[in-house]
Amino acid sequence: MDMSEVTAKLIEAKNRKRATYQDLAEAVGRNKTWVAAVIQGQASMDEKEAEALLNYLEIPYEEIKHELMTPPYKGSLSEDVPTDPLIYRFHEITQVYGTTLKEIIHEEFGDGIMSAIDFKMDVEREEDPGGDRVVVTLNGKFLPYTKW
Amino acid sequence: MDMSEVTAKLIEAKNRKRATYQDLAEAVGRNKTWVAAVIQGQASMDEKEAEALLNYLEIPYEEIKHELMTPPYKGSLSEDVPTDPLIYRFHEITQVYGTTLKEIIHEEFGDGIMSAIDFKMDVEREEDPGGDRVVVTLNGKFLPYTKW
Amino acid sequence: MDMSEVTAKLIEAKNRKRATYQDLAEAVGRNKTWVAAVIQGQASMDEKEAEALLNYLEIPYEEIKHELMTPPYKGSLSEDVPTDPLIYRFHEITQVYGTTLKEIIHEEFGDGIMSAIDFKMDVEREEDPGGDRVVVTLNGKFLPYTKW
Amino acid sequence: MDMSEVTAKLIEAKNRKRATYQDLAEAVGRNKTWVAAVIQGQASMDEKEAEALLNYLEIPYEEIKHELMTPPYKGSLSEDVPTDPLIYRFHEITQVYGTTLKEIIHEEFGDGIMSAIDFKMDVEREEDPGGDRVVVTLNGKFLPYTKW
Amino acid sequence: MDMSEVTAKLIEAKNRKRATYQDLAEAVGRNKTWVAAVIQGQASMDEKEAEALLNYLEIPYEEIKHELMTPPYKGSLSEDVPTDPLIYRFHEITQVYGTTLKEIIHEEFGDGIMSAIDFKMDVEREEDPGGDRVVVTLNGKFLPYTKW
Amino acid sequence: MDMSEVTAKLIEAKNRKRATYQDLAEAVGRNKTWVAAVIQGQASMDEKEAEALLNYLEIPYEEIKHELMTPPYKGSLSEDVPTDPLIYRFHEITQVYGTTLKEIIHEEFGDGIMSAIDFKMDVEREEDPGGDRVVVTLNGKFLPYTKW
Amino acid sequence: MDMSEVTAKLIEAKNRKRATYQDLAEAVGRNKTWVAAVIQGQASMDEKEAEALLNYLEIPYEEIKHELMTPPYKGSLSEDVPTDPLIYRFHEITQVYGTTLKEIIHEEFGDGIMSAIDFKMDVEREEDPGGDRVVVTLNGKFLPYTKW
Amino acid sequence: MDMSEVTAKLIEAKNRKRATYQDLAEAVGRNKTWVAAVIQGQASMDEKEAEALLNYLEIPYEEIKHELMTPPYKGSLSEDVPTDPLIYRFHEITQVYGTTLKEIIHEEFGDGIMSAIDFKMDVEREEDPGGDRVVVTLNGKFLPYTKW
Amino acid sequence: MDMSEVTAKLIEAKNRKRATYQDLAEAVGRNKTWVAAVIQGQASMDEKEAEALLNYLEIPYEEIKHELMTPPYKGSLSEDVPTDPLIYRFHEITQVYGTTLKEIIHEEFGDGIMSAIDFKMDVEREEDPGGDRVVVTLNGKFLPYTKW
Amino acid sequence: MDMSEVTAKLIEAKNRKRATYQDLAEAVGRNKTWVAAVIQGQASMDEKEAEALLNYLEIPYEEIKHELMTPPYKGSLSEDVPTDPLIYRFHEITQVYGTTLKEIIHEEFGDGIMSAIDFKMDVEREEDPGGDRVVVTLNGKFLPYTKW
Repeated sequence: MDMSEVTAKLIEAKNRKRATYQDLAEAVGRNKTWVAAVIQGQASMDEKEAEALLNYLEIPYEEIKHELMTPPYKGSLSEDVPTDPLIYRFHEITQVYGTTLKEIIHEEFGDGIMSAIDFKMDVEREEDPGGDRVVVTLNGKFLPYTKW
Repeated sequence: MDMSEVTAKLIEAKNRKRATYQDLAEAVGRNKTWVAAVIQGQASMDEKEAEALLNYLEIPYEEIKHELMTPPYKGSLSEDVPTDPLIYRFHEITQVYGTTLKEIIHEEFGDGIMSAIDFKMDVEREEDPGGDRVVVTLNGKFLPYTKW
Repeated sequence: MDMSEVTAKLIEAKNRKRATYQDLAEAVGRNKTWVAAVIQGQASMDEKEAEALLNYLEIPYEEIKHELMTPPYKGSLSEDVPTDPLIYRFHEITQVYGTTLKEIIHEEFGDGIMSAIDFKMDVEREEDPGGDRVVVTLNGKFLPYTKW
Repeated sequence: MDMSEVTAKLIEAKNRKRATYQDLAEAVGRNKTWVAAVIQGQASMDEKEAEALLNYLEIPYEEIKHELMTPPYKGSLSEDVPTDPLIYRFHEITQVYGTTLKEIIHEEFGDGIMSAIDFKMDVEREEDPGGDRVVVTLNGKFLPYTKW
Repeated sequence: MDMSEVTAKLIEAKNRKRATYQDLAEAVGRNKTWVAAVIQGQASMDEKEAEALLNYLEIPYEEIKHELMTPPYKGSLSEDVPTDPLIYRFHEITQVYGTTLKEIIHEEFGDGIMSAIDFKMDVEREEDPGGDRVVVTLNGKFLPYTKW
Repeated sequence: MDMSEVTAKLIEAKNRKRATYQDLAEAVGRNKTWVAAVIQGQASMDEKEAEALLNYLEIPYEEIKHELMTPPYKGSLSEDVPTDPLIYRFHEITQVYGTTLKEIIHEEFGDGIMSAIDFKMDVEREEDPGGDRVVVTLNGKFLPYTKW
Repeated sequence: MDMSEVTAKLIEAKNRKRATYQDLAEAVGRNKTWVAAVIQGQASMDEKEAEALLNYLEIPYEEIKHELMTPPYKGSLSEDVPTDPLIYRFHEITQVYGTTLKEIIHEEFGDGIMSAIDFKMDVEREEDPGGDRVVVTLNGKFLPYTKW
Repeated sequence: MDMSEVTAKLIEAKNRKRATYQDLAEAVGRNKTWVAAVIQGQASMDEKEAEALLNYLEIPYEEIKHELMTPPYKGSLSEDVPTDPLIYRFHEITQVYGTTLKEIIHEEFGDGIMSAIDFKMDVEREEDPGGDRVVVTLNGKFLPYTKW
Repeated sequence: MDMSEVTAKLIEAKNRKRATYQDLAEAVGRNKTWVAAVIQGQASMDEKEAEALLNYLEIPYEEIKHELMTPPYKGSLSEDVPTDPLIYRFHEITQVYGTTLKEIIHEEFGDGIMSAIDFKMDVEREEDPGGDRVVVTLNGKFLPYTKW
Repeated sequence: MDMSEVTAKLIEAKNRKRATYQDLAEAVGRNKTWVAAVIQGQASMDEKEAEALLNYLEIPYEEIKHELMTPPYKGSLSEDVPTDPLIYRFHEITQVYGTTLKEIIHEEFGDGIMSAIDFKMDVEREEDPGGDRVVVTLNGKFLPYTKW
């Protein structure tokens, strides 16, 4: 069974139970975006987390547990420039504000990067009379360049 | 004078004055990341903002004021996939977590997108004994798909 | 069942009934181009709309209803530059007149964009003795860039 | 003098005179979007139109008149997928709704295309209490495929 | 049944009957290159033409008739630059002589294009003692650019 | 002096003399499309031809004669897929009818290609009450594949 | 049966018989590299050659004979830049020494090309105390550019 | 002075002296294709070779000698797929016969490659009543894959 | 059975036996990274090695042995720029430090390359109180460019 | 002055002094590969290091010191796939052995990456009777994926 089939099976079970990612997150004891990333085949769980997820979704397969525990080949898109408008907007932010982020981070932290590995992110709804807002928080450790 | 020359002149003046983006932000009355985006040629100012910036930097040129007020051709990178490691990490976040963001936003808001136009972002330092962290907040209005 | 199979089943049923997109549009209570977009897997319906469509087409499947209600991964082409001549002409209009549209919209509205989300479009036939004409109307909300 | 220099000189004169594209259109006796397309190097004028434009802008150069009368190498973007958000939205419309337009046009007109040559377009502002709207009308002759 | 299967079935029947494209052209009452284009999934027939073709090839399928009558998604190659040497030579002609064709056509016809829709082509053998020659004739209506 | 400067100088002289490609062709004793190809930097002349062209255009430069006699680096476009609509239509013909040409040529000549080297082409105007037509004739030697 | 299945069946039979390409070449009466090219789906045989090959390999299928006699869609790689190191080295030779070959061939033969159709190649082992060498000989007819 | 200027200067001197690559090869004591590769900026000479070349061409510059002795950034083309027909034919040979070469070399030498570094090549004219032929010989050491 | 199925079967057997690559390496008498490369379809074994591997993994299939002994079509990624973050970091090292490696190797060894064929690599863990480190050693024979 | 001019000036001074990277490394108190990376515009120095380098090279410019201290836009190649054979071999190692490295690192360290930021590398010569070897050591901190 390859990872896209695992994703399909998990989403089907989630729909059957009318569960939200928040429900899964509580069952596993993790944040909802991280659990969604696992289901999308972009992160891996330990055995206890995988069992909690499968128990909650009432899926018995041993094989799926194994897949959830294996570090996946990451990259959720088949294109460098995503065509889906929701995902494209994030690409656009990198394209338009990439050098801006570089300027600000270098000024405040020096030469280095924001880690995408020692990293967490969250998505929240901010109520606003002009229309509610999506707030995405990206939180990564600053890694200074080593000199050698 | 094209926009890359404007950027070079403004950065040179900023270095000469040993000013930070926070200093410029205060002079203009806006957030530091937005001011940096203007200087990188990715956003446009009104006349008052442009004058405040040029006065602070002690740059007299009329021509630069005009450039700062013209909507630029946006896109700060010459590549679809950026080679610079700091900027690449943001590309990687879109590549790896793009479908995750899509799942979560659709579940919580329905079919639509986070706007990259009615949008603001901020960069903050979060102190952490395991190494300080870069926190980037992306805040865009949710735009539901119109049916017609 | 993935979305391309859903599209195939719906088009087959539409052909069997010798229905036009206008017929489907009336059954659903929406514009014909929007209904065609749903069938092409580029927009999602609510439950009532999906049921109206499936009843009209006499398709009982529960699974298709679910697919029609899920926000799809959008993007109807497998190429950045479409090879099909009808679709290529729209790509050509963007290529040739892209900067023209930018000039005119910025002059009349300021720095911002025409939304492709708060958006509707229509296709009409205009009779003309020199040969009938296709009139495509794109109607999107102007979104001014936020300053922050 | 190459066409990009011609564009720069004409825009500089337009700014100096504080003229709008509508003003230029009236001087030339054509639609504002077509005049903007000429200035962007995407269409050519006859001698009378070119002289009307240059007279209005008070530019004496003979060489520019010649450039305006030469069919240009068309294509206003240096990328297949434009990075500028305003222009990208038109690319997105082709990407997302390309097959929808194909379905509707084939159903109503048969096998053929909307011409991008025997073609005109217009941009209008539609006032709307929920936010004014950009209305772009694309109007091209239907060209049926010849059989031979 | 998708179009590539239709193509395979038609070619198989053509081989079985040891028919040439000229034979099919006579059965349908059209030029051999146009009939070949239909079989390659690049043009569509009306009902009478489709029946003439299927009768000649002794193929009873109703489904194939329907496919032959549907405007196909055109584009016969999966690459922008074809690898097959016969087809590449046509790409090479466009690459090498593209600007030459542009110069000559603009000089003789003004600003406009040769239509690839109101278009026919033919392939003939020219006997030559130095080796027979392939003569391909491309014949398209000149479409002048509309001004508006 | 590189070839694009040579092209610019020759076209400027051609415009100054109000000469057509047909005039140049007669001065050189060759077909107009071949002379245009030389001027576009896609073919090379012998000394006599180069002198005839330069004499006719009243250009004395020795250096240009040398450039016209050197086999150029061929390829007149900077893109695999040309953006200019006139040139794109030729690309479209290859894309749409490439496999059709392959079928017909293989059926009539066997396995081999139409040469683009032992090759000539011509452009003619065909008068037509429904609109004049551009007729492009491609004439290349058939080269059968050698077996070894 | 498509060509990749034909290739697989032929290679399997070749392995079963422990035959070399030299053995097949002798059975067919052709060079080993040409026979390998046919098996890789890059060249076509006449009926007698195809029967000789299939008899030698003890494969009875009529369908394979037909495939071997049909001019294939040529191009053995799915990438412009091959990833396989053996094949990449040939790409590297074109990349690095392409303009060198152009200089030498033009100096010695004039403006024209080495044919890849009226062409044969061979691979030989050259014994060498410093390590045996692979010697690939490319032998193509010089085709001078026609003037017209 | 960058390498393309060095190339231009050397070719200009070669033309001025009406020298062939064979003449240069004899002056340097190397093969003509290798000397052409050096001049094209694809290989480097030692001091004695560089001086022999510059003396023969009567070019005094010290700076050029230095450039000829520096290992260049190799790759003579600005495209993955060359547009020039002479060079394209070599690309075509790799595309069409790449897997054929792989089969033959692996069968005769085992798993490994033909080196493009411990490598030499030559171009010869083969007289032929059917048209003279270009014979290119590629001669590289076989490098077996190391196991470790 | 194609190579990706072979890889899947071997990894499944490895998991079933809870074997590490080090265990397999010892069974085969080779380094763990080389054995992993074979399993990933990037290197080939001799008969004895293949039998040792299959015996250890208790897989009887003759067909797999044959696949392990055939030189594979190498290249483990379907993209030029890998999306997986672990693999991307190696791409990044080539992108960022490529010219640095070129400078250092040319200075110390002269014009030539580090072989990727007469090559071995190893991965080791280096304990470090600031976090353990991955140490990858690339060891290839220096190949000087031949002059000819 | 942009970074490529800085690189050119530093290399010119290094050549003038006949200094090696090892000499520069000792003057700065860092490893030779890191100093080469700085000179190639891929890393930044602090003020003391920059002054040590400029003093050693006897370059007085203040402006260069400033450039050496600014975090550069990293990425030393203008292509995703480098054409230079020395650099390509590193690309090939990633292409061929990328999944092998992923397997080994995940098995020994778990889900995470080798950092290319908290990273150092070295190049050494290993003497070998069969030909000296280039040994490149890549040493990066293992970064485990954070769960959140």
